[in-house]
Amino acid sequence: MRYRFYNARLLTMEQDCSVTEGEVWTEDAAIIYTGPEKEADLTWDREIDVKGNLLMPGFKDAHTHSAMTFLRSRADDMPLHEWLENQVFPLEARLTAEHVYHLSKLAIMEYLTSGITSNFDMYFYPEAIARASVDCGFRTVLVSPITSFSGSTVEEMEEDYHKFNQYHELIRYHLGFHAEYTCETPLLEAIARLSEKLGAPVFNHNSETRESVEQCIKRTGMTPTAFLNSIGMYGQGGGGYHCVHMTDEDLKIFKDKGLTAVTNPGSNVKLASGIAPVRKMMEMGIPIAIGTDGPASNNCLDMFREMFLVTGLAKILEEDAAAVDADEVLHMAVSGGARAMGLSRCDMLKEGKLADMVMIDLYQPNMQPFNNISKNLVYSGSKANIKMTMVNGRILYEDGKFFIGAEPAEIYENANCIVRELVQ
Amino acid sequence: MRYRFYNARLLTMEQDCSVTEGEVWTEDAAIIYTGPEKEADLTWDREIDVKGNLLMPGFKDAHTHSAMTFLRSRADDMPLHEWLENQVFPLEARLTAEHVYHLSKLAIMEYLTSGITSNFDMYFYPEAIARASVDCGFRTVLVSPITSFSGSTVEEMEEDYHKFNQYHELIRYHLGFHAEYTCETPLLEAIARLSEKLGAPVFNHNSETRESVEQCIKRTGMTPTAFLNSIGMYGQGGGGYHCVHMTDEDLKIFKDKGLTAVTNPGSNVKLASGIAPVRKMMEMGIPIAIGTDGPASNNCLDMFREMFLVTGLAKILEEDAAAVDADEVLHMAVSGGARAMGLSRCDMLKEGKLADMVMIDLYQPNMQPFNNISKNLVYSGSKANIKMTMVNGRILYEDGKFFIGAEPAEIYENANCIVRELVQ
Repeated sequence: MRYRFYNARLLTMEQDCSVTEGEVWTEDAAIIYTGPEKEADLTWDREIDVKGNLLMPGFKDAHTHSAMTFLRSRADDMPLHEWLENQVFPLEARLTAEHVYHLSKLAIMEYLTSGITSNFDMYFYPEAIARASVDCGFRTVLVSPITSFSGSTVEEMEEDYHKFNQYHELIRYHLGFHAEYTCETPLLEAIARLSEKLGAPVFNHNSETRESVEQCIKRTGMTPTAFLNSIGMYGQGGGGYHCVHMTDEDLKIFKDKGLTAVTNPGSNVKLASGIAPVRKMMEMGIPIAIGTDGPASNNCLDMFREMFLVTGLAKILEEDAAAVDADEVLHMAVSGGARAMGLSRCDMLKEGKLADMVMIDLYQPNMQPFNNISKNLVYSGSKANIKMTMVNGRILYEDGKFFIGAEPAEIYENANCIVRELVQ
Repeated sequence: MRYRFYNARLLTMEQDCSVTEGEVWTEDAAIIYTGPEKEADLTWDREIDVKGNLLMPGFKDAHTHSAMTFLRSRADDMPLHEWLENQVFPLEARLTAEHVYHLSKLAIMEYLTSGITSNFDMYFYPEAIARASVDCGFRTVLVSPITSFSGSTVEEMEEDYHKFNQYHELIRYHLGFHAEYTCETPLLEAIARLSEKLGAPVFNHNSETRESVEQCIKRTGMTPTAFLNSIGMYGQGGGGYHCVHMTDEDLKIFKDKGLTAVTNPGSNVKLASGIAPVRKMMEMGIPIAIGTDGPASNNCLDMFREMFLVTGLAKILEEDAAAVDADEVLHMAVSGGARAMGLSRCDMLKEGKLADMVMIDLYQPNMQPFNNISKNLVYSGSKANIKMTMVNGRILYEDGKFFIGAEPAEIYENANCIVRELVQ
C-alpha cells in the first residue's frame, strides 16, 4: 500500500519540536518521503488531504499491563494494599490466555484513540498478547512479568526471548521481571546471567512506592537500584518503571548504565505513590520515557493525560512553573519511549523510518489559536484531537472508526462477559 | 422545541451517582420528565435514540477567564512573575470589547466539547462576554474582575449587577473582585457594603499562591480569608477561587459562612501554585466546586482533566489512595458548581429543572467494561466521550458539530487575527 499525505503540517521530531509544512509518503511499513510538497512519479492507493492538520510520530506507551482492562473502575478509592489483595490478585488468578487476548484488544483500541502506536506490555500469557497485537495490526514490545511465585522459569524466559523476537515484525521481546520485592535473589541472579548471555537489557518495576524501597533496604542494605546493580543486572542496560523514590546514588547508576526511567504519573497519583524526580533526571541526562501503567491503576490509557501530568507534577514538586518544558515531554513520549523499547525506526517522521504516525486535528477549539502547536499538544491536547493512527503503514483508526479486524461491539461484549465470568 | 431522549442510561445526580435506565423529555428550556420508559401523549420535534449511552447534568466550570484563549500556549514553562509581567499584562492591556467577544466564543466552543454547560467568568468587558454567550446559546454567570487599577468603580459594579441579572435568561451576574492583593482596602470595604445592600454573595481569587498569603499577612496581620472576613466581606456568602494555601482558621471561616471553595487543579500545577486541601475541606463540610481557570494558565478548558486532578492531587497530598472519592468529585463538578453560581435549576436531571444536559458516549474503549460508570467518568473519561451538549433545552454540540450561530472556521480565524494584531 502506498499513501500520500499532503497539505500537512509536520512535526517530524528529527530534532526540536518545530513545525513545518509538507507531505509524508508511505509504502507498506515504511516512510519513503517527508518534506515539502513535490511531484511524485508514483501511483497511490490513497491520497489524503490533511487539510492543514498535523502529522507526527505516534506516542509510545513505555509501561503498561494492557489486559488489566477488566479491572478498570472495578476498585477505586481504596488503600493500595486492600486493592491489591482483595481485588487485583484474586481476579487475576482466574484469568486465562483467551481472556488476556480479548482484554488486550480492548486496550489496543484505546491506545489507538490516544495516538499511541506501540506499547511496552508486561503481563501474563505473552502469546495471547502478541496474537491480539498482530491480529489488530498493533506494535507491541513484550516484557517478562516473572516473579518467584508466577510458576514460570528463566529457561522459559530465554525461550520466549528467541520465540517472540522472531514471531512477527510487529512484536519484540525484552527481558524483565516484575520487581525486586517479588523475586528472590537466585531468580534475579539467573536473569542477570541471561542478560549477559544474550546481550539483552532488563526492565522491571523500580522504586514505585516508598515501602518497597524501605523493605529492600531492610532486606539487602541497599535500595532496589543499588541492589540490582550489585548483582550485575544492568550490564546490558534496560530501565525501571515508575522510579518515584530514587536516591542520588540510584540516579547516578541510571545515568552510568544508560538506563531509561519510565515515568507513570497517572498511576502514581491515583495510587498515591508519589512524584518522580523528573527534572533531576533530565538535568543528569538520564533517558526518560512515559507509560500509562495498566488500566487498573490509572484508569485510562491516554498519553495526553500522562504528558500533562509529567510536566505538571514536576512543576509542583520543584515549586517552579518553568520546570520540565513541554517540548521535552513530547520527546519523552515519542523518542524516549522508542529508545527504551528498542524501536529505533519508530522515533521520527523521516525517510527509511517505519510509518507509525498520527494525525492531530488542529481545527478543534483546544488547539486554537496557533500560538505554539507542540505546547498545545502537551498542555491542551486530548484524545478528541486524534484524527488518525497508523501503525507500520496501516491505518488502524480514522475519524472515530477502527480498522483492526474486529468490531468494537464484539470487543466490548467480550470484555463485559469476561468480567461477569471472573467476578462470579 | 420538544425533545424525547429514549434508550438512555441516566445519571440524574438527584442523590448518589447511581445509574438507571429510562428517558428524558425536554420542552423549551426545561426538563418535563425523567424516569422509566413510558408512552407520551405529546408531539416531538425530535426523538433521539440514546442507544444505551449516558445522559447526565452538564458540568459547571466554576472559575475561568474565557477570553484568555488568545494567550493559550503563548508563554508556557516560565516563572510566574515573568509570565504575568512580560506576557499577560502587556497583551491584555490592548484587548478591546470586540476581541473579548470573539475570544469568548472560542472558549465556549471548547466548553461544549467537554460537556460544560455553564461557566463562572471573571473578565473585562462583561457586555461582550454576555453577548458571546447569548449569541452561542451558552449559560454564563459573570463576576466582576475589579481591581484598584482597573479603572472601574463599585458604582459601575452595582449597575452591572442590576443590568446583567435582567439581561437574558442565560446570563447572571455575581459581585466580585480580582483578589485581596490587587484591591486597596477602601475598595474592598465598598464592595462589602454593596454586598450587604444587595444581599449578594462575593467571589474572588483567594490564597492562590503562598506569596500572596504571606504578603497579606505582612500588610494586614491576617490571611486573605481572615482579613476579608474582618471587613465584613462574607456576610452574604460567596466563595474563593483556588484556595490553595488555607489555614485551619481560613477553612473554619469558609465553613461558618457557607463559602464555596472553587478548586482549579490544572492551573495550580501548571503555575506551580500548590495543591488545595480538598479532603480537609470535604471533611469539614465546606462546599466545593471545580474550575478550569483561564486558558492562559491551564491551558485547556476540560472538566475531565480537572476532575481527575482533583482526586489525584488529593491522593498525593494525603498519601492515601482512598482520599476524595470520584463520586464526590462528580458532585463538585455538577451540583457544587451550580450551588456556587446560583444555578439552582441546573444541578440534576429532574422534572422542572433546566435542560442543561450532556450525552456521554459509553461505547468507546475508555468507558469499557461497565464496571462502574460514574468512576469511569472521573478516572478515564475524556472530551472524546462527549456526544452531545445541550444548554437551556437547545443542542449546541452534537457528534463533533457546533450549533452556535457561527462557523468554527470563522471563530478560529478571528482568534488568530486577534493574536496577530495584539503581538505586533
